[in-house]
Amino acid sequence: MSRLQVLLIAGTHGNEINAPWLFEQWKQSPGLINTHDLSVSKVLGNPQAFKACKRYIDCDLNRSFRKDLLNNRTLKDYEVLRANYLLKKHGPNGFNPCQIAIDLHSTTSSMGSSLVVYGRRFPDLAIASLLQGRLGLPVYLHESDSKEKGFLVESWPSGLVVEIGPVPQSILHPDIINQSQLVLEILFQELGKLHTGKACFPEELIVHRHLGSIDFPRNINSQIEAVIHPLRQGADWIPIRNGDPLFLEPDGNVLSYEGDEVVVPVFINEAAYLEKNIAMSFTKREIWKFSNNWEQSINELFHNKL
Amino acid sequence: MSRLQVLLIAGTHGNEINAPWLFEQWKQSPGLINTHDLSVSKVLGNPQAFKACKRYIDCDLNRSFRKDLLNNRTLKDYEVLRANYLLKKHGPNGFNPCQIAIDLHSTTSSMGSSLVVYGRRFPDLAIASLLQGRLGLPVYLHESDSKEKGFLVESWPSGLVVEIGPVPQSILHPDIINQSQLVLEILFQELGKLHTGKACFPEELIVHRHLGSIDFPRNINSQIEAVIHPLRQGADWIPIRNGDPLFLEPDGNVLSYEGDEVVVPVFINEAAYLEKNIAMSFTKREIWKFSNNWEQSINELFHNKL
Repeated sequence: MSRLQVLLIAGTHGNEINAPWLFEQWKQSPGLINTHDLSVSKVLGNPQAFKACKRYIDCDLNRSFRKDLLNNRTLKDYEVLRANYLLKKHGPNGFNPCQIAIDLHSTTSSMGSSLVVYGRRFPDLAIASLLQGRLGLPVYLHESDSKEKGFLVESWPSGLVVEIGPVPQSILHPDIINQSQLVLEILFQELGKLHTGKACFPEELIVHRHLGSIDFPRNINSQIEAVIHPLRQGADWIPIRNGDPLFLEPDGNVLSYEGDEVVVPVFINEAAYLEKNIAMSFTKREIWKFSNNWEQSINELFHNKL
Repeated sequence: MSRLQVLLIAGTHGNEINAPWLFEQWKQSPGLINTHDLSVSKVLGNPQAFKACKRYIDCDLNRSFRKDLLNNRTLKDYEVLRANYLLKKHGPNGFNPCQIAIDLHSTTSSMGSSLVVYGRRFPDLAIASLLQGRLGLPVYLHESDSKEKGFLVESWPSGLVVEIGPVPQSILHPDIINQSQLVLEILFQELGKLHTGKACFPEELIVHRHLGSIDFPRNINSQIEAVIHPLRQGADWIPIRNGDPLFLEPDGNVLSYEGDEVVVPVFINEAAYLEKNIAMSFTKREIWKFSNNWEQSINELFHNKL
């Protein structure tokens, strides 16, 4: 058995209930997903929010892994305490140390099956390459966003978020469960091949690099004045050009994208982001040549050298 | 102007935000929807829950119009107090008495644009006939359900619920807003025609009569053991027969509908009904001959004789 320990997290947001349900079934039928001899720890990210069927109790757990929050012993927010607990138990220096964290989410936006990596950590890019090579999943590279920080997976040596949608919050959906299971199966197949030296990396990784986010048009009372344009609704990952519609005003007036650059919108009309004032995020599609450094770093992680 | 006063309610559930948004736009542009000289009062059903973007604060407002709750002066639940307030202000004997209540909802299930009537009140059936005649909307007749009582519209002489979906909770969706607006426009056109004696009723009303609801299969710990079958997901209003799939177990085993009667499932996988232990409801499709009594009763309502 490898010394690599993989942490799987479901229900980091309590109203994203499909991955937790899959974990429960997997617990009852341990053969449901083949882990290819890897050591796997499964954890329910936010049990209190899951019980209440809401995103969080006090604050977003997936923004609570900021050092200033984690080290602030006077903070009593449930999610900050939970973040510290998860690190103490499963963190790289925890009681049951894990090196890779895979955090399973769902979206109301039409993200399909997709991956999110934070920054450009080499082992993350290696895993994303393997999964994209097998399943063609789009990869969202989240970086350089001063407003959105403290993501869970950043606290592990390597970690990715899996985002699957569209599905309303608080709904069990057979397709979403299937897609979640498929991603895990392929992940373990590929990590298993890495372990036996049989991994086959693709030559390129296509990333969608985060450029920024836009809010809904609002009036002086902060009320939303225009909705997502019907041509944009559900059209995540589809490139837009100067003049393409973004929002629709009640009188039929269309607000369009203005810019010389072709951008790819993601997280369009995501219910969870309404409170974050994000109507959609813009990304730039880039094709990166696969780097041997990425392969080396994931191999080092496998042998606990990181 | 008719003496008929119509009450429109949006946001009876605080996380169904499309109709409230439409009302807000309508307030800013009074010509947005032509009310054909009818007197219309618009009200946000549950302002506190709307602010919190959740279904309710203490209990479901749309189950709080039970006489035993309304008359219990010791109850301090926000929604029961709100129900009393709405009746005091807009009830048939209120400060600003209304005779017809139209309650606008949205669903995560694929209900399309549809109407719900409670019991067999003649003026409700008349309005449902007019709307079905124009828009072909399916009508769900809710009756004989001892578990689900206290619906808002039942406290007015006439009232219908409009259910439009699918849309995740807490999402503004251009299609849902359009559909809500269309139903209101046609409603006022038809009530306007009634007022001028030009209404043209169809010969039949197709109703889907409530038979009962079924829960998800659960284990002894009340945990859900099977999800909605992919063939049933999103298939509201489509008839099923003996042997048609209902649920899918994790091992692939299919749980099927068993019954001699053809039934029509509605509210399939409705997020809001998870806590009510309803996975879907079964109805029976019936074609009713239009009754002159229905027409008479709505005309009487128009002239404040009811």
